[in-house]
Amino acid sequence: MARERRRRRRGPAESDAQEVPKAPAYIKRKIPHYSILSDDELSVIEENADTILEEVGIVFSEDQEALDILSSAGASIDGERVRFPRGMCRKIIQDSAPKEFIQHARNPERSVVIGGDNMVLVPAYGPPFIHNLDEGRRYATIEDFRNFVKLTYMSDNLHHSGGTICEPVDLPVNKRHFDMVYSHIKYSDKAFMGSVTAAERAQDSVDMVKIVFGDEFVDNNCVLISLINASSPMAFDGTMLGALKVYARNNQATVVTPFIVAGAMAPVTAAGVAAQSLAEGMAGMALTQLIRPGAPVVYGNFVTAMSMKSGAPTFGTPEAGHMMNISGALARRLGVPFRSGGGFNGAKMPDAQAGYEAANTIQATINSSVNFNLHTAGWLEGGLCMSYEKFVMDADQAGMMWVENGSRDTAMIANEKYKQMLSDYELPPLDPAIDEALLDFIKERKDSFEDSNI
Amino acid sequence: MARERRRRRRGPAESDAQEVPKAPAYIKRKIPHYSILSDDELSVIEENADTILEEVGIVFSEDQEALDILSSAGASIDGERVRFPRGMCRKIIQDSAPKEFIQHARNPERSVVIGGDNMVLVPAYGPPFIHNLDEGRRYATIEDFRNFVKLTYMSDNLHHSGGTICEPVDLPVNKRHFDMVYSHIKYSDKAFMGSVTAAERAQDSVDMVKIVFGDEFVDNNCVLISLINASSPMAFDGTMLGALKVYARNNQATVVTPFIVAGAMAPVTAAGVAAQSLAEGMAGMALTQLIRPGAPVVYGNFVTAMSMKSGAPTFGTPEAGHMMNISGALARRLGVPFRSGGGFNGAKMPDAQAGYEAANTIQATINSSVNFNLHTAGWLEGGLCMSYEKFVMDADQAGMMWVENGSRDTAMIANEKYKQMLSDYELPPLDPAIDEALLDFIKERKDSFEDSNI
Repeated sequence: MARERRRRRRGPAESDAQEVPKAPAYIKRKIPHYSILSDDELSVIEENADTILEEVGIVFSEDQEALDILSSAGASIDGERVRFPRGMCRKIIQDSAPKEFIQHARNPERSVVIGGDNMVLVPAYGPPFIHNLDEGRRYATIEDFRNFVKLTYMSDNLHHSGGTICEPVDLPVNKRHFDMVYSHIKYSDKAFMGSVTAAERAQDSVDMVKIVFGDEFVDNNCVLISLINASSPMAFDGTMLGALKVYARNNQATVVTPFIVAGAMAPVTAAGVAAQSLAEGMAGMALTQLIRPGAPVVYGNFVTAMSMKSGAPTFGTPEAGHMMNISGALARRLGVPFRSGGGFNGAKMPDAQAGYEAANTIQATINSSVNFNLHTAGWLEGGLCMSYEKFVMDADQAGMMWVENGSRDTAMIANEKYKQMLSDYELPPLDPAIDEALLDFIKERKDSFEDSNI
Repeated sequence: MARERRRRRRGPAESDAQEVPKAPAYIKRKIPHYSILSDDELSVIEENADTILEEVGIVFSEDQEALDILSSAGASIDGERVRFPRGMCRKIIQDSAPKEFIQHARNPERSVVIGGDNMVLVPAYGPPFIHNLDEGRRYATIEDFRNFVKLTYMSDNLHHSGGTICEPVDLPVNKRHFDMVYSHIKYSDKAFMGSVTAAERAQDSVDMVKIVFGDEFVDNNCVLISLINASSPMAFDGTMLGALKVYARNNQATVVTPFIVAGAMAPVTAAGVAAQSLAEGMAGMALTQLIRPGAPVVYGNFVTAMSMKSGAPTFGTPEAGHMMNISGALARRLGVPFRSGGGFNGAKMPDAQAGYEAANTIQATINSSVNFNLHTAGWLEGGLCMSYEKFVMDADQAGMMWVENGSRDTAMIANEKYKQMLSDYELPPLDPAIDEALLDFIKERKDSFEDSNI
């Protein structure tokens, strides 16, 4: 923290050299939970989820091992379709999944508690493009990725370094995970997410954090959290199952997340979406506990509604807020941490639409007691773009320390601010021996197979 | 409604001639209330409000009649300062103030229910400037005023025509209320607000609605709702008291609203603001009931927090949301409708900042069960500006029917939309005899005294 304090003291606002309070590592919620549904109404949704699990079942694709594990636990297998006796998934989860857990950062002061009354704010994940006022929209590169890791590291209001902050498309698909995980370790000291695009890439992520934290520490503690999306409706694919198994086996956290655009991959009604999402989520979460009881697992929700006029996903709507609220209440009843979020919007620029829709979603996350708030900062254009300016605005909104502005458009102010931040950036300390070991590992692994973009 | 249906049928989206559902006259809340404080905690704030009323008291300036009325009811008078025995104001209000009431519009299908689980969305109030992309910022005129009445009339998501949508500074201060009230009657058929800038202007407003609705109807029904601001901290001025008395005597609704920038006119803490605001509000509301028991009265809240760095008011912050939530819960316990809102922001353009802050406040109004949501649409630059483009964006947000957009800035799309709306505008029907009587009344009254700008 010495460096952090030094940087702050240099700022004009702190010129009187007063002690600057340290930013909290995460948010502790002090206001009551809010559920738009009653306990009776939530029970109906849970019953319906069990009916889906029992009668329709969930497809576990291209993964015989997963089918065998689920079969041994009492599920019935029909090809790749798995049907679960009522209550089976819930019991497996409640028997061993932790209600909350610590994800350790390499700087212990940055470790976060995921679950309970805590909220961890995480930058956006996955955009193949970046957007800024100078260049407009273009494909993202590893340089952009590093920039966003640095900006996140410097933002007190973001508690976590995230995962694929943007997709570095200038690097081969089968090797870019090395550079992403290394960037999170090298340019930040906050907790971060691992690769999920193949089982071996998940294993590479685990091997890299073992270099940083040591083998035994990693086996006993959560240092990685990773995003496992269902292929909604009612399916998981082999890639996601492969990554899920690696992380669960290594006692690392997974966020099992039905990916739902209501009206496309699910019914249009909030109640229907909530039931389907719970069924998918419980099936995936149960598998983690069967692989390694006690491995941290988070119930994730990515929910938008489709515009029934254009077929496009919509963001920041009350429908999405209702679905999030219901799923949050279901997660509390199940007893697992809840992931949702974030600064969603369909805008193509960091304009008023982006602001309205992002704020609507962030407010919904507060109303839904979200624990792990992915996509807090930077999300633009339905997630296709990571915006430099919106990142700055979202991060400020997250801490409600809004930039004092003149008469210029807010995006222009944010444009100046992100450039200033990048120019002020200083590396957090990293043991040179660990750095060298990581670079050696990456080189050796990268050289051991040909580059590929599939 | 025949005209309304005709206009809709002609729209491109309705070219298949299907029946378009009529927009509801107001919103009926179907989700539970949410209070961030427990009943015990709210009781503490009520106790503190009674302590303020008992020990500090409220100044009723320049109004001997108000002092006499309050004295007769049991308050103690010390110069212009009035101190109330504990529980006195609450009892007076609960004895006769309606929990909810109908405000009649001249089109009965547009009448609104204020209070209970209902929410009425109302445009912004009071800005002396307008802002649009073509001209930037300039003083507002009566032409702008008429434009905003028309735009509000055409917006299904706004349920009420509002009051001083913008200040027509091209007209004399002492006569512009005639043109404002007339514009609400002439260019719209939704319910609206009366003048409060002098007792006689309030009376003119009442006289004008009597021409439209008839004397007896007005005496027995609410057709006007008007904004009575306290001169916080702990004072009402003679102008506001004069208007309050006219409206209460005529059985018309008032919205008694402490006007608080926390840190300036009140403590910085949410609990302190809530106690002071409740004390001021109850004192004013009690006076309405002493003047005419049963006259509709609404507990209003205009709360922002001051930036302790710059002294500027801030908008869309969690602090303001907390204060609104607490005051909403206090209004429900008191048993009167609650006014707050709206699309607040400190932005100078309809940019991302405007969007974030406006959405944050609108979300807070939903969490606070606001009944009469003033400032829903158009508010810009801390209320100094009424923005044409933001009006369109806010109104769309209010109905969550977002404009489908291309790659242009949302404000540019809104710029086109407001112009199209104004060009499509058609007058609602108005009995020519009533129109003539109103114009005669206005001419006679305007000619009876000299123009003045004080």
